[in-house]
Amino acid sequence: MNPTHPSTQSPRAIDVIRKKRDGGELSRSEIDYLVDSYTRGEIPDYQVSAWLMAVVWRGMTRAETAALTDAMLHSGEVLTLTSLAARKVDKHSTGGVGDKTSLVLAPLAAAAGVVVPMISGRGLGHTGGTLDKLEAIPGFNVNLPVGEFRRVLEACGCAMIGQTAEIAPADRKLYALRDVTGTVESPYLICASIMSKKLAEGIDALVLDVKTGSGAFMKSEEDAAFLADLMVETGERMGKKVVALITDMDQPLGSMIGNALEVTEVVEVLRGEGPEDLRQLSIELAGWMLYLGGVADSVEEGKKRSEQLIASGKALETFRRMVELQGGDARSIDDPKKLPQARYTMTLSSPRAGYLTSVQCEQVGTACVILGGGRERKEDSVDPAVGIVLHKKVGDTVSVGEKLATIHYNAEVRAAGAKRLLEASYQIDDSPPHEKRPLIHRVIGKAGEKN
Amino acid sequence: MNPTHPSTQSPRAIDVIRKKRDGGELSRSEIDYLVDSYTRGEIPDYQVSAWLMAVVWRGMTRAETAALTDAMLHSGEVLTLTSLAARKVDKHSTGGVGDKTSLVLAPLAAAAGVVVPMISGRGLGHTGGTLDKLEAIPGFNVNLPVGEFRRVLEACGCAMIGQTAEIAPADRKLYALRDVTGTVESPYLICASIMSKKLAEGIDALVLDVKTGSGAFMKSEEDAAFLADLMVETGERMGKKVVALITDMDQPLGSMIGNALEVTEVVEVLRGEGPEDLRQLSIELAGWMLYLGGVADSVEEGKKRSEQLIASGKALETFRRMVELQGGDARSIDDPKKLPQARYTMTLSSPRAGYLTSVQCEQVGTACVILGGGRERKEDSVDPAVGIVLHKKVGDTVSVGEKLATIHYNAEVRAAGAKRLLEASYQIDDSPPHEKRPLIHRVIGKAGEKN
Repeated sequence: MNPTHPSTQSPRAIDVIRKKRDGGELSRSEIDYLVDSYTRGEIPDYQVSAWLMAVVWRGMTRAETAALTDAMLHSGEVLTLTSLAARKVDKHSTGGVGDKTSLVLAPLAAAAGVVVPMISGRGLGHTGGTLDKLEAIPGFNVNLPVGEFRRVLEACGCAMIGQTAEIAPADRKLYALRDVTGTVESPYLICASIMSKKLAEGIDALVLDVKTGSGAFMKSEEDAAFLADLMVETGERMGKKVVALITDMDQPLGSMIGNALEVTEVVEVLRGEGPEDLRQLSIELAGWMLYLGGVADSVEEGKKRSEQLIASGKALETFRRMVELQGGDARSIDDPKKLPQARYTMTLSSPRAGYLTSVQCEQVGTACVILGGGRERKEDSVDPAVGIVLHKKVGDTVSVGEKLATIHYNAEVRAAGAKRLLEASYQIDDSPPHEKRPLIHRVIGKAGEKN
Repeated sequence: MNPTHPSTQSPRAIDVIRKKRDGGELSRSEIDYLVDSYTRGEIPDYQVSAWLMAVVWRGMTRAETAALTDAMLHSGEVLTLTSLAARKVDKHSTGGVGDKTSLVLAPLAAAAGVVVPMISGRGLGHTGGTLDKLEAIPGFNVNLPVGEFRRVLEACGCAMIGQTAEIAPADRKLYALRDVTGTVESPYLICASIMSKKLAEGIDALVLDVKTGSGAFMKSEEDAAFLADLMVETGERMGKKVVALITDMDQPLGSMIGNALEVTEVVEVLRGEGPEDLRQLSIELAGWMLYLGGVADSVEEGKKRSEQLIASGKALETFRRMVELQGGDARSIDDPKKLPQARYTMTLSSPRAGYLTSVQCEQVGTACVILGGGRERKEDSVDPAVGIVLHKKVGDTVSVGEKLATIHYNAEVRAAGAKRLLEASYQIDDSPPHEKRPLIHRVIGKAGEKN
């Protein structure tokens, strides 16, 4: 008997905090209590932020991580897409610079016969966001109500919207708190945040693209693999097919950075053109989506099928359809010059001859933010027209005065700042880089064991 | 340049949290900013609680601990007692069961010529509190305004009150937050809390009684010594003479537990009677107070002087005077039977013969709480009359049926619960205990090096 801790039916917040502080494993009911009570406003922010810091400190077991994900997932509406017979598959990327694969993959996988109910986010800091890219298409509406989202899915097999108030409200509340209390940086909390939102889409399978390198949230491959493994196991514990690809983000993906520019590059890839790395990664991820979605017997078959759907124009036609169904102007897909264009361009030339040995990826993303193409703060608006076109990849040779990049801008003072940062991002040496980093570092997950 | 962290004049709360989370050492200005802004209500609770948990995790350097103490100390009024020529010395105990030395020491040291401006707290959980004991004296007012506090000090050399709204408001706000966020248990935060309040009394020297054993907050001697060392160094960094005695709290101190009963025992000691352990510890602590207060050339001389002041009745007379000056009924000091008396008593007898080898100290304290003599929650009121008188000390022999303890109670059902707990607290064996724990384990602090 301990009179300072009167026993009650439900665990007290203070006891749950103390248990985690002391390195204990929380039970499912303790985690449910914390998440449910917090979402309902019955536990104050200051107790939850202390608990979050204790989680950053002590970590979580796999069972705790799955329980947290499940509690957050069920804090709101979980979509049921049973009216659609095909398997529902989504892809999630941990974010990077120039990463526009979502816009390629949703129509590509839908053209192959899987359903892609994709709920995405906006850009923040140096990384871009899928919603910002979609909104570069005049008229495109990312704020569809759930009924309309379902109708678009039924009509063309894919739909792309932003988070709604009904989906995983616990995550929205917890994320806002983490953002101001230094508790974002925990793989367990990142895992629960991502997986709760994705699983609330009512999907059967998920392909995770976990980035590693200078432009990624997880700089080291070890950290990326740890997070990937955590997310895969969490999804598998919930009966989903999940696979994670650790992919390179040590230089920007593709050639274009900036919202309208990235849509242009997406259209190029869907036309069978575009830069090799973006094309290759898109095909790889699509292969996995088709395989996990049950429309291909292997990843290889899924990749082949994806290439055919690009060659036949069916993937592009599905993208065009989705754009129309979501209110966008499809003429800008037929002719990307109709997308918002920056008023001016400025060229960055190489100060010397040699090999491009590295591009500081995060700085390139930041240069785009300076141009107005990204957000410093959540409440900032973005300029869809501005951005950067890169003309060289790591390993390429450059001559003196050769164009390294073209800056698309609307304000002179911003362009000057972006240019300075961009200049500092390039390293050019006499010899080629020691190692060529692979695009796909590794694949994690039981779903991939057959392949 | 990092656009997600716009630079500002003062450090941002989130940056201070992150720095501590990552194990960094906070600067004086970062700590000042956090404490000042929080006290003024400019930083929300949820950021401070995350920071507090990061401190529990990462700890603090000595410089950080001193800076935190200083910031909290200067968050409110710091008493200036320059009108009193003598040195101002206080004693602080980390709390235990039956620990009533403050009531002995304040008048004893004052009788010797040092000034004792003692600001104390209430009991919570199994440990008692000085203010509750004083309030067992009919009429005694622990809520004196600062001016009145100073007048009592001038008149009799000692005064005992509770914390005021003006003293260390940062501590009051931080402690309330720590209490509900699982962040009480950090030696750095405990040190800053204790030392900021004590140093705000305007003292020149401080004797710390850090308890160790089953009834103490710090169960192990290592933890007690760590906290003691931290508090001593923090005080020394602020130019104060500080010494810490690690003393035993593995069994209750003295024989009486409960507010009026403890006042009775205090009067016994001031009359030169009372239990040996309480008397010995009081003399030891008083010796240090007199030495650090400059009225004795050594601790030994201070102890001798203290014994003389008890023998001459001067210490008791000073106590009587302070009680009168603070509105208390001095007749209850002349005749402690006039203190509140419980209506009933009940005896706990030994079920067997042998040696008393241990008394679970925390459980004895809890038994007193069950009787109504202590608090489960801060808002509870206490019954001054109830308590427990112990008739045996560890190491004593007992025969079958011999009285172990007498329970003083006002409610039958509470007495039954307290008795059961008390029974379970005693261990009686065939052989005497292996080791006799010393009353004073060790002394920590530069001030003690000469002795």
